[in-house]
Amino acid sequence: MRYFAKIKYLGTSFHGFQVQPDKRTVQGTLCSALKEALGCAASVTGCSRTDAGVHANEFCLVIDAPGATVPADKLPVAIARFLPVDLSLFYAETCDDSFHPRYDVKEKEYLYRIINQKVYDPFEYGRAWFLPRDIDDAKIHKMNEAARYIVGKKDFKAFMAEGSDVEDTVRTISHLSIEKKGNLIEIKIRADGFLYNMVRIIVGTLIDLAYGRFEPSDIEKIILSQDRKKAGMTAPPDGLYLNHVYY
Amino acid sequence: MRYFAKIKYLGTSFHGFQVQPDKRTVQGTLCSALKEALGCAASVTGCSRTDAGVHANEFCLVIDAPGATVPADKLPVAIARFLPVDLSLFYAETCDDSFHPRYDVKEKEYLYRIINQKVYDPFEYGRAWFLPRDIDDAKIHKMNEAARYIVGKKDFKAFMAEGSDVEDTVRTISHLSIEKKGNLIEIKIRADGFLYNMVRIIVGTLIDLAYGRFEPSDIEKIILSQDRKKAGMTAPPDGLYLNHVYY
Repeated sequence: MRYFAKIKYLGTSFHGFQVQPDKRTVQGTLCSALKEALGCAASVTGCSRTDAGVHANEFCLVIDAPGATVPADKLPVAIARFLPVDLSLFYAETCDDSFHPRYDVKEKEYLYRIINQKVYDPFEYGRAWFLPRDIDDAKIHKMNEAARYIVGKKDFKAFMAEGSDVEDTVRTISHLSIEKKGNLIEIKIRADGFLYNMVRIIVGTLIDLAYGRFEPSDIEKIILSQDRKKAGMTAPPDGLYLNHVYY
Repeated sequence: MRYFAKIKYLGTSFHGFQVQPDKRTVQGTLCSALKEALGCAASVTGCSRTDAGVHANEFCLVIDAPGATVPADKLPVAIARFLPVDLSLFYAETCDDSFHPRYDVKEKEYLYRIINQKVYDPFEYGRAWFLPRDIDDAKIHKMNEAARYIVGKKDFKAFMAEGSDVEDTVRTISHLSIEKKGNLIEIKIRADGFLYNMVRIIVGTLIDLAYGRFEPSDIEKIILSQDRKKAGMTAPPDGLYLNHVYY
């Protein structure tokens, strides 16, 4: 059996998606649960890596389990009792060998959540970036102006964490929006691919801009510089969610 | 100084509001933080008790700290760094001795959250009651029909946990509504006072009714019986939030 599946997880207590020795990871936790639920070994290939502390509302993957007999539509309920409370598998269908969960991704959407109020909200701990300094409508407008310089097919090397060995740093961002609803700021970004820490650096740069470090037109210069040091801070993982995967 | 304040907390890791020896409680945690923030002893009187695992979006209290000099409007930020991540004080004003945070309550509103879907949601763990069996619009309608028998000034002894020594079991429920938004069911209940476990037993009874154990007209008989055994199950604390206090 080969399943295409969708999972959801609260990243706080995971060391990211990918298996690492002696660390609690999403992939490792899922493989153990699959072994119990399917009664045979299973391998899992994800659509992406996510860092420690990063969450997923929708993360897609393929499960290869040649010995499995559980029908795809029964898998979500069959596996539920073997999964911990911070991880769920909510959708499964069968798929064929030609499909690859990472290479076949057309676009991915990330959501970044910021709580902007003087006193933090206990219900948002680990689930948003808490920023007490006011970000008013004029600042949100400025961030959206800056976003226009980011959207498009560009070399985003300046927004890649140093130490990454990726060579082709050109990506196409098709959507970037910043919206404030009460005290919640939601930043949505959609692209054909992301460099290491790219979303967190873009969010950090937009916040630096809101607080006066940059002007919208500086963004163009930052991108052209291809220099990580010219961009802003890296936002914490807490507010970041892989939100949707487009195939 | 005497402050009237509003707090918010995630109840999961607290043994309820009220101080208990050797247990982590909201009142105990708050008193320690106040001592640090105000530099003097402070006593805290709450608007209500809440059970272990129950949350508060808005819990009101009075802080008596004769030696304090911190202005009320500075208190939320002053105390923030002494509070743990699951508790925040988000509003304070001064108040006089004639005000009592419990006796002066006119009404309290509780919110109960239910997640109704086949597979649980990791983001809702500890924050809602997870019910996989479908509750459709017809069942929601039936629950609202039953609610009409509950609203009013009545003896709610049948909805009080056994073992409570309260003698006057008459309360006035002014509002009870059940609403479904996607997979989230929100039950809101407002009354001049609540008996021990009353909201959780009402919610449990409404769910028993949704799943066919009772008909709406049975509710009248349950209330008249004054017998806890005639009512339904007690819903878990996870989904319960003190939502608003009316003075």
